[in-house]
Amino acid sequence: MRVGPPGRERPCVMGPDGRVLDLSSLTADIDGAFLEGGGVERVRTAMAAGELPEAGPYERVGAPVARPGKVVCIGLNYSDHAEETGATPPAEPVVFMKAPNTVVGPDDEVLVPRLSVKTDYEVELAVVLGRTARYLASPADAAEVIAGYAVANDVSEREFQIERGGQWDKGKSCETFNPLGPWLVTPEETGDPQALGLRLWVNGELRQNGSTKNQIFGVHHVIWYLSQFMVLEAGDVVNTGTPAGVALGRGPEAYLRAGDLVEVEIDGLGRQRQRMGQA
Amino acid sequence: MRVGPPGRERPCVMGPDGRVLDLSSLTADIDGAFLEGGGVERVRTAMAAGELPEAGPYERVGAPVARPGKVVCIGLNYSDHAEETGATPPAEPVVFMKAPNTVVGPDDEVLVPRLSVKTDYEVELAVVLGRTARYLASPADAAEVIAGYAVANDVSEREFQIERGGQWDKGKSCETFNPLGPWLVTPEETGDPQALGLRLWVNGELRQNGSTKNQIFGVHHVIWYLSQFMVLEAGDVVNTGTPAGVALGRGPEAYLRAGDLVEVEIDGLGRQRQRMGQA
Repeated sequence: MRVGPPGRERPCVMGPDGRVLDLSSLTADIDGAFLEGGGVERVRTAMAAGELPEAGPYERVGAPVARPGKVVCIGLNYSDHAEETGATPPAEPVVFMKAPNTVVGPDDEVLVPRLSVKTDYEVELAVVLGRTARYLASPADAAEVIAGYAVANDVSEREFQIERGGQWDKGKSCETFNPLGPWLVTPEETGDPQALGLRLWVNGELRQNGSTKNQIFGVHHVIWYLSQFMVLEAGDVVNTGTPAGVALGRGPEAYLRAGDLVEVEIDGLGRQRQRMGQA
Repeated sequence: MRVGPPGRERPCVMGPDGRVLDLSSLTADIDGAFLEGGGVERVRTAMAAGELPEAGPYERVGAPVARPGKVVCIGLNYSDHAEETGATPPAEPVVFMKAPNTVVGPDDEVLVPRLSVKTDYEVELAVVLGRTARYLASPADAAEVIAGYAVANDVSEREFQIERGGQWDKGKSCETFNPLGPWLVTPEETGDPQALGLRLWVNGELRQNGSTKNQIFGVHHVIWYLSQFMVLEAGDVVNTGTPAGVALGRGPEAYLRAGDLVEVEIDGLGRQRQRMGQA
């Protein structure tokens, strides 16, 4: 994990006892170079040896990886979500992107864009790459390039996305639209990525309550598939789709407004808590 | 401009006499921080004082800016191109993205993706941001955030883009799909961005021959517009659309194959020369 003010986060790790330990002696940041260069293994060794000092108090949790080279997303990847949006389940993954500077900490303020009336939420399982993925031979090869998993909220403005010119990116890339974290959890600690419960609440009301077992294209398939079209790199983030329950499927009164509280959780990956603000 | 091997380019500037001068004494790279921090003005001062040494021989020209935080593109932005693709001219800009790691040097090999049969070319005027742009009040304010202009080839795989799931990014983000450069040219040296001729040849045959005067949404409008939906940052690249003449409008035999030579030119911004390879 990374803690501290935006842009000046310190690399840390949460030990099995819940204590937060400082990694500054091992790395300047948790980024692609760290993940690709055996950083996780070095952390394990140092933690086992009791070499890491406590992080001390911190006022904010940042995204668990430095700004990614790209944020790639899969659309309509849960059959129940495809149904609620009126879309046919896709024959192959629907791919779009978010601007990498949308990534913020898990508890940072999320801004309703100016002139927005359809700001929506999407709990998603995010995959963080640990190695380059280029033309992977099979979905099974995806396991070797995954550094870990995290909670993401793929915040979306539906009017910008759907009613303003045909391509989705316009409604996916607004400022603060990708809370990520609190932690990057290794594949071993995550367990089966196709058996994770995902939940999202707005002002305490449970709006999404799904499981990654209902993904149309599983995590390994998605990473293999993307690697046929682009070069994924260590530190890149892939959001793997959202289950049913978004505002788009509920009606106008379900969209987010300044002041709303959004909480987002995935089994074993932690919980986010965002207060909505106004851009 | 930047010269040297991929990933190890040195910052340089081409003087009025065509000599290439080394900027290593002023900056480690030409990137967002350099552009935002008054780097261009420092180069002007040092060049006028005769303080810059010659760069010496180099074997390659790289992209004129370091890897951008994002590459944002405008689709169907020339009326003649919209017509050839069978699309209605858009009521407002169509926005999509390319993966930032598609950016390569102007004369680097461009790879036809595996299983591709519809790899296409698009000469485009690229805008490089010099400052953050967030909710600009009017198109006139865009002038202040533009660091300069460059030639881009928005290479596109039409089957991946259009026939494989609905969103364009999948056919826009393949490896090597965004040759950029040779130079970043300042707005003063570029002159009117709406009066530039753009040309592209394949194996010596002129395929595109347009002018930015035919853009549906001009450069300043595009930057203002994008800033309403996302935060543009110094070093970001915006490709502003392509004129008529792409293979998609010409028929199957016009698509690119390994061995083809693509040349791309914009008035005052220089010329690119790419030999197509096979991924």
